[in-house]
Amino acid sequence: MLGAIEAGGTKFVLAVSEDGLTVEHRVSIKTTTPEETMAQVFAYFDKYPVTALGLASFGPLNVNVRSESYGSITNTPKLPWRHYDILGDMKAHYPEVKFAFTTDVNAAAYGELKAGAAKGVQDVVYWTVGTGIGAGIVSNGKLLQGYSHPEAGHMLVRRDPRDEFAGFCPYHHDCLEGLAAGPAIEQRFGKPAIELAPDHVAWEIEANYLAQACMNVTLTVAPERIVFGGGVMHQPQLFPMIREAFQEKIADYVEYPALDDYIVPIALKDDAGVIGAFMLAKEA
Amino acid sequence: MLGAIEAGGTKFVLAVSEDGLTVEHRVSIKTTTPEETMAQVFAYFDKYPVTALGLASFGPLNVNVRSESYGSITNTPKLPWRHYDILGDMKAHYPEVKFAFTTDVNAAAYGELKAGAAKGVQDVVYWTVGTGIGAGIVSNGKLLQGYSHPEAGHMLVRRDPRDEFAGFCPYHHDCLEGLAAGPAIEQRFGKPAIELAPDHVAWEIEANYLAQACMNVTLTVAPERIVFGGGVMHQPQLFPMIREAFQEKIADYVEYPALDDYIVPIALKDDAGVIGAFMLAKEA
Repeated sequence: MLGAIEAGGTKFVLAVSEDGLTVEHRVSIKTTTPEETMAQVFAYFDKYPVTALGLASFGPLNVNVRSESYGSITNTPKLPWRHYDILGDMKAHYPEVKFAFTTDVNAAAYGELKAGAAKGVQDVVYWTVGTGIGAGIVSNGKLLQGYSHPEAGHMLVRRDPRDEFAGFCPYHHDCLEGLAAGPAIEQRFGKPAIELAPDHVAWEIEANYLAQACMNVTLTVAPERIVFGGGVMHQPQLFPMIREAFQEKIADYVEYPALDDYIVPIALKDDAGVIGAFMLAKEA
Repeated sequence: MLGAIEAGGTKFVLAVSEDGLTVEHRVSIKTTTPEETMAQVFAYFDKYPVTALGLASFGPLNVNVRSESYGSITNTPKLPWRHYDILGDMKAHYPEVKFAFTTDVNAAAYGELKAGAAKGVQDVVYWTVGTGIGAGIVSNGKLLQGYSHPEAGHMLVRRDPRDEFAGFCPYHHDCLEGLAAGPAIEQRFGKPAIELAPDHVAWEIEANYLAQACMNVTLTVAPERIVFGGGVMHQPQLFPMIREAFQEKIADYVEYPALDDYIVPIALKDDAGVIGAFMLAKEA
């Protein structure tokens, strides 16, 4: 049996599956402290004969297998979790289980590749645009991880000329996340993004930033597909706007797939991370 | 015996080696038309018992093995070479030889990984900053190629506040290449970069742009090392300036290797592409 943990900053999703594609059972628990939350994690998985488990966590994480602190959450602003060896504790509790370990967004990218909007391709960039911006990357069928994992939500973008918002990223102010995540839209216009009309200029500004993100990953990792998920992307009008802005910016310098098949919405919705974690566990 | 072709826009370097690390013989020929230049290529390699050959070419190239025009140079401004099936012609002439095919910068990245400034690491980004800007990327020991190959020289950067130069990239005007390649420096200050004093503001502006490039690739592919080559990088004062600007911009959000070992100059100099092509041929 396969297990999956999608460890988020506000909740943990715990799930089990036989084939990795069908969620047989799942629960959602609140993220509090490692002591409390992990006790619930152990209580859950103690009930199932899990042989392999995919652990997909909020980050930043140490995913460098050559490092001594491989398997830890690193400098998160969630203090009780900072430098917590989440993989080490799981392994200590389940010494017979095989583990896969990566970021929540990498797992979602993998889920979309295996069973979602990027099924059948080998190279995908998955962006989640919500309270923050994260990116998961699969290259040649494998998660892209080097010294660390992608944190492309913090890449630098050029300010839209209509935008005077300072940006809310505590590290970089007006990086991509600081200008284009949900809180940026809300702070810029004084109301939640979901309350803005589909033809509000907010979405043109948003499309400009997300098109820059697409351009930079196209020029760097040359994916076959770019998948967008997260709360901000529940605005269907954004997709044609991003495609158009991307096409204008990249100016036919490089070849990329047909745009309607290149920049697309997530297919697995809330299941992407869990399915990706199952599939990573299966291959562990 | 191993062969290497480093096919550049102004010259082709042809070389042979037994072990892939030592260049036994090389010639350099002028890039004119496919007919003329390739006749010289064939005349050269007809003399050696080559069993595997690494072909590293100027681009953009079609490196997508699932594409019908795999092996071709695509929309280069060098018109006689546009859509020329360089790999196909080589294979037709040498049907018994095994081929590796990639961009000149990817080969240089691979050479630096195998025998140069990134020896011993698995993940490297190689930048060449000269008449243009190119990037080669090795991820987990393999060339990073998806739908296409990296063209990160054209990523978007933020304009330095001291810089009023419009940018010279014919596609994107003020992308990284348009603002930071050699011709940008020359056009901005009215004299060749090499004539500017080491403490000229030109190098501060240059370091700003190259630090942005380092930040974006760190956040996207998380390499273990970033290697810079090319004519513009013959200015040793640039390295500490890029490191300092990078550190300030990325603001300790992610972990990266010790800076003096992270952002470093090329070691193999003009041999990087040829050695990389040999090593790719060896593994073909």
